[in-house]
Amino acid sequence: MSRKLRMAMVGGGKESFIGPFHRRAAQITGRIELVCGAFGSTRHRSFEGGEDLFLARERIYGAYRDMLRKEASLPDDVRPDFVVITAPNNLHYPVAMAALDAGFHVLCEKPLTTSVDEVQNLGRKLDDKQRLIAVAYTYTGYPMIRQAQKLIRDGRLGNIRRVVAECPQGWLALRLETAGNRQAGWRADPRRAGPSGCMADVGAHGAYLTELLTGLQISAVSADMRACVAGRQLEDDGAVLFRLSNGAQGVLWASQVSVGENGGVRIRIFGDKGGLLWELDNPNTLTVHALDGSSEVLRFTEPVTALTATPPAGRTDCLCDALAYIYNQFADGILAFDGKRDPAPIYPSLAEGVRVVAFVDAVVRNTRPENTEKWTQLAM
Amino acid sequence: MSRKLRMAMVGGGKESFIGPFHRRAAQITGRIELVCGAFGSTRHRSFEGGEDLFLARERIYGAYRDMLRKEASLPDDVRPDFVVITAPNNLHYPVAMAALDAGFHVLCEKPLTTSVDEVQNLGRKLDDKQRLIAVAYTYTGYPMIRQAQKLIRDGRLGNIRRVVAECPQGWLALRLETAGNRQAGWRADPRRAGPSGCMADVGAHGAYLTELLTGLQISAVSADMRACVAGRQLEDDGAVLFRLSNGAQGVLWASQVSVGENGGVRIRIFGDKGGLLWELDNPNTLTVHALDGSSEVLRFTEPVTALTATPPAGRTDCLCDALAYIYNQFADGILAFDGKRDPAPIYPSLAEGVRVVAFVDAVVRNTRPENTEKWTQLAM
Amino acid sequence: MSRKLRMAMVGGGKESFIGPFHRRAAQITGRIELVCGAFGSTRHRSFEGGEDLFLARERIYGAYRDMLRKEASLPDDVRPDFVVITAPNNLHYPVAMAALDAGFHVLCEKPLTTSVDEVQNLGRKLDDKQRLIAVAYTYTGYPMIRQAQKLIRDGRLGNIRRVVAECPQGWLALRLETAGNRQAGWRADPRRAGPSGCMADVGAHGAYLTELLTGLQISAVSADMRACVAGRQLEDDGAVLFRLSNGAQGVLWASQVSVGENGGVRIRIFGDKGGLLWELDNPNTLTVHALDGSSEVLRFTEPVTALTATPPAGRTDCLCDALAYIYNQFADGILAFDGKRDPAPIYPSLAEGVRVVAFVDAVVRNTRPENTEKWTQLAM
Amino acid sequence: MSRKLRMAMVGGGKESFIGPFHRRAAQITGRIELVCGAFGSTRHRSFEGGEDLFLARERIYGAYRDMLRKEASLPDDVRPDFVVITAPNNLHYPVAMAALDAGFHVLCEKPLTTSVDEVQNLGRKLDDKQRLIAVAYTYTGYPMIRQAQKLIRDGRLGNIRRVVAECPQGWLALRLETAGNRQAGWRADPRRAGPSGCMADVGAHGAYLTELLTGLQISAVSADMRACVAGRQLEDDGAVLFRLSNGAQGVLWASQVSVGENGGVRIRIFGDKGGLLWELDNPNTLTVHALDGSSEVLRFTEPVTALTATPPAGRTDCLCDALAYIYNQFADGILAFDGKRDPAPIYPSLAEGVRVVAFVDAVVRNTRPENTEKWTQLAM
Repeated sequence: MSRKLRMAMVGGGKESFIGPFHRRAAQITGRIELVCGAFGSTRHRSFEGGEDLFLARERIYGAYRDMLRKEASLPDDVRPDFVVITAPNNLHYPVAMAALDAGFHVLCEKPLTTSVDEVQNLGRKLDDKQRLIAVAYTYTGYPMIRQAQKLIRDGRLGNIRRVVAECPQGWLALRLETAGNRQAGWRADPRRAGPSGCMADVGAHGAYLTELLTGLQISAVSADMRACVAGRQLEDDGAVLFRLSNGAQGVLWASQVSVGENGGVRIRIFGDKGGLLWELDNPNTLTVHALDGSSEVLRFTEPVTALTATPPAGRTDCLCDALAYIYNQFADGILAFDGKRDPAPIYPSLAEGVRVVAFVDAVVRNTRPENTEKWTQLAM
Repeated sequence: MSRKLRMAMVGGGKESFIGPFHRRAAQITGRIELVCGAFGSTRHRSFEGGEDLFLARERIYGAYRDMLRKEASLPDDVRPDFVVITAPNNLHYPVAMAALDAGFHVLCEKPLTTSVDEVQNLGRKLDDKQRLIAVAYTYTGYPMIRQAQKLIRDGRLGNIRRVVAECPQGWLALRLETAGNRQAGWRADPRRAGPSGCMADVGAHGAYLTELLTGLQISAVSADMRACVAGRQLEDDGAVLFRLSNGAQGVLWASQVSVGENGGVRIRIFGDKGGLLWELDNPNTLTVHALDGSSEVLRFTEPVTALTATPPAGRTDCLCDALAYIYNQFADGILAFDGKRDPAPIYPSLAEGVRVVAFVDAVVRNTRPENTEKWTQLAM
Repeated sequence: MSRKLRMAMVGGGKESFIGPFHRRAAQITGRIELVCGAFGSTRHRSFEGGEDLFLARERIYGAYRDMLRKEASLPDDVRPDFVVITAPNNLHYPVAMAALDAGFHVLCEKPLTTSVDEVQNLGRKLDDKQRLIAVAYTYTGYPMIRQAQKLIRDGRLGNIRRVVAECPQGWLALRLETAGNRQAGWRADPRRAGPSGCMADVGAHGAYLTELLTGLQISAVSADMRACVAGRQLEDDGAVLFRLSNGAQGVLWASQVSVGENGGVRIRIFGDKGGLLWELDNPNTLTVHALDGSSEVLRFTEPVTALTATPPAGRTDCLCDALAYIYNQFADGILAFDGKRDPAPIYPSLAEGVRVVAFVDAVVRNTRPENTEKWTQLAM
Repeated sequence: MSRKLRMAMVGGGKESFIGPFHRRAAQITGRIELVCGAFGSTRHRSFEGGEDLFLARERIYGAYRDMLRKEASLPDDVRPDFVVITAPNNLHYPVAMAALDAGFHVLCEKPLTTSVDEVQNLGRKLDDKQRLIAVAYTYTGYPMIRQAQKLIRDGRLGNIRRVVAECPQGWLALRLETAGNRQAGWRADPRRAGPSGCMADVGAHGAYLTELLTGLQISAVSADMRACVAGRQLEDDGAVLFRLSNGAQGVLWASQVSVGENGGVRIRIFGDKGGLLWELDNPNTLTVHALDGSSEVLRFTEPVTALTATPPAGRTDCLCDALAYIYNQFADGILAFDGKRDPAPIYPSLAEGVRVVAFVDAVVRNTRPENTEKWTQLAM
């Protein structure tokens, strides 16, 4: 019979944005329990976070390394099954490496790492340790994204010609990072966020969805981006022209300073037989355009499992539901785990994480002041 | 210091539609734990439901009366704080009465009862037992509904003239109740659903929101409704003209057979100074029209508590978030409970439950074949 | 070979709302020329109106009776082919009667008359005079309305169960009629507008479209309406429950005081096989819902004639294009006229005009203070 | 007193797309009359076109040069006031030059010319001949575009940071140009359309609106574009990164092959104080976002003149209304003409035409296969 899985968390404390999403997603599956965590950058913050969650004091840790060491030594029926990493970007790599070393499976927030070198090291570590890894590319959890992927693979759009992706937000239009906003604080700090701001944080979704949906790879980019807010070190707005492996062209816009935009990821894909629109504002519908001028609006109405409690009447899910699909798939993977990592799981994993790191890396290289070349190839 | 509250559940088993919503809403608050339940109409179904939730076998019950008796006798730090009722409509009244008798607070799905007599009895029982009761009028949990209520109370629309409410669904366009669909089964059965079909099930939301938002009472109704699907005993579609206490007029349409409609509750309210639109399809926005022809679109962007994990960027919540607000308010009420029931709590309670029962009762009386009078007054 | 048709106009002067629409619609056809008119309620106003249109002074008239007499005596190649009536409602009947007596065809704004008696007289006059008559139910000119009519006739929605129509405006939310607004002036004056305000002015569209699209007749109505604005004599807001000849139920809301509503006629029709939405805000699309949960969005992309200049790329037409279709059909009728009136032309004509007059009459009777009966049958 | 203006037309014959728009726009003003034309590329086609318009045979011409010579010699009260050019792009320049030489004012479809050299020559000719010229950048005629321009000039958005423009169509997704479609025929033919396909045809609108609305100039471009349809010679899809004179960045996507897109020009502009959206699908509304998370929706409700017959209730105009504003402004200019050309008229004129020619020229140079430089400066 099935059992409840045990989850350890790194990051996700009191003022975390993404931490609560992960906890809700885990809860939604109905079969994952948070058992321990290192929730903050200080001992005090971590305990504050853990107590809000009614965790036993002895399983709240001031430092993730302490947690990994201690928890790894616990008996089989107490020890966590996996570690979820919701700390700032710069910690994704060291925590993931340490968690794998300690023998845990890992579910990591995106981006998997902040550099190509790191992501290559992580790949080698996975080969070595043979554990499972998932990356929280949340939108892949939306059923209509999977439906879109299937439609395109089945040829409904024909040969892909054009992709238009946008990932605009407006919440960083002011310099919140020096006004005490912790979310803005680490996102605008290259030491914690890595070499890219809005491209790594939100543009990555557009790149990832492009490859996932079309089944093609982004081969080269040409970009323009900058920090619009005075004094900010990382770009908060930019656009990318890209080429796909079949010669199709794409354009992606990402922003954190576009006042009035509320994080509405939107992707349109056009082929020689049709076009398609998916947008986060209506995540349970998918619009498919045909050459004859008509359009079909497909709606998600079936819950994948009763446990996800997706309303049968087709009401709009929250982001947590999408993330819960990934947790569910990862939980299936863990329960079926036979000692060897799955090289091509259904949830986003190493391969997908690598592609996005390579995309962001190429965009950053292309937009360096000293570069005058139009196109930059992806490194991997 | 705060503590986790304990919840007992009646109904909400394996094929329940609304049960998982309640469990998720409770989880979202981060401070309510499901500890026991009588989940189904048979002993077998109840255990199946409880085991899926990883509950201990000794706290899964075949019958709600057994649960109430047994759990009431448990020590203070184990005994549930309240009972949530998610069984079919006909059970709301007897379970609520029994739970109050056993000394529990109650959170009940709508409608509170299926008749005026019952709801009056329940009122007397509450006076007698002095316990708390909440009714799951979920939409009242949406922050923008509260915002709309405040705007109107502050006079932004002026004197209210006209209400237009619609609550259309299409999922019962075929006769699912004889095709093994359990949700359709009880909803189309007068013994379990009560004397009204779509009006009690979905139209009630329109009536409730009308009174909540305008601060006025529905005084009389004139309606037309019927079972469109051959062989069905309860109305599955209908419309109601209504009068409000200030002389304003309203119209409400409810349906379960309108193909293509996905449960999108929509309410528009017009006064002599402005107009207002709220719709479930965009629950975090509120559109307010002014006499000069411009409109303002207000957006919900602040999470009420970090625990609800509402994304700061304003992404669409799911229905569970709205319900979680009610659970949160109810939890506050329980923790603050001093032995006397709160006669006017912030969450929907007895008074609101009574109004909707009276509305449905008046609509049913108005549409009886023998009635030829245009208007029917509400009984309470 | 074809020739340009000559049009005489009654009403439509300097401050007219609907007059310019008719002139544009006639121009769009490319084959109708305005040659004379009696444009206003005084000699001065009429000349002012005519001179703005660069008409020759001798063909501008101070009174419509003078125009009809004089123009009827002109030679064949100068005399108008038809008279268009865009004066206030109370003049529709006398002008139409006089124009038919003078031997002209007539294109009349809606409503055809302001009473059942008048419309019956007009019917007899048409039988007597054997001339053509069109009524400007403009929305029937939209290609997607014709497409919707065809879809329903072809059975795509199955047996019709429910109609929801709305015709809301907000421009009369203040008492403009006493503030010098001429449009408001006659519309709020029972001597010029007739016994009904918003129902005759805008609600009529909903009633008309219901019958046109479903192919069914409205058999009875039950309504609630009133003048919301203090001092106004005619109702400016109201709702109607109605029954269709097959037992289907409908609801119609019309308003002139709903702040923020911009005249967006919207109609939804549901049957046992599907549902359908058309709305004036997107007049060139038609949404058709199927039982499987998917929807099809049909778009109008083909211009009916090059002369109407509808953009091939499917851009939104203005109301004038819809009206131009009616003018075009009427022009075809005139050119093909062989001395006998067409009893069932493609453009809206006597039969359609009669139905709407009967609908408005029934609503007015149903809402008289002395009436307590729920249902009122249509007189014709 | 005012008089009717006389218009000569070049192009716009039987299968023309844009010709009927211009005739309707002229008619809408109520003060412009088409008096003669050279409507087609052959004598036969021209006469066919002119007769459909009920023009006198002697004022229909087989060749535009004949028309210009003959009409220039007519008496003052018969001779056209201006020539409108609606022929394919390659004819804009020679016809405009010849019309100016013959002493006429000119209203020309966009693009003004197909090369930088030509547009410079045309500028010199205008200095020499001192006549008026307007370019049909139709969207500038929309009242809400002018409203947006004013808002930005008044500082409502603060300092501009980001522009996102899109001009997608899908009607050339198949190779219509070899299937007898005349519109596709000349647009896909470099000899008639010039060196650019979709950028000159539709992308130009995005570039023009960017400069008009922001009051800034596009200084440099980096682009990617291609012919997606096999065998096509001109690009039918592409995207452009651009820089504005204040350092702001922009992105523009234009397409003729994006199935399901219906020509919906859309522009978003973001500054440090707010954001703004205008789209052709809702041309009479303008959405303005503020830093506090709220949005204002402004609606156009006032007709500029009664003659344009814009409905007071705010219904959607057609493209012709926007074009009619330009005709109206041009007519004002002609009536006020005192022998000297207006260097900065309110309607789009030489300066605006030059900017767009320079934009298209830079995009074409940037995307030549031999170019590897990222950025290309605009020539003028």
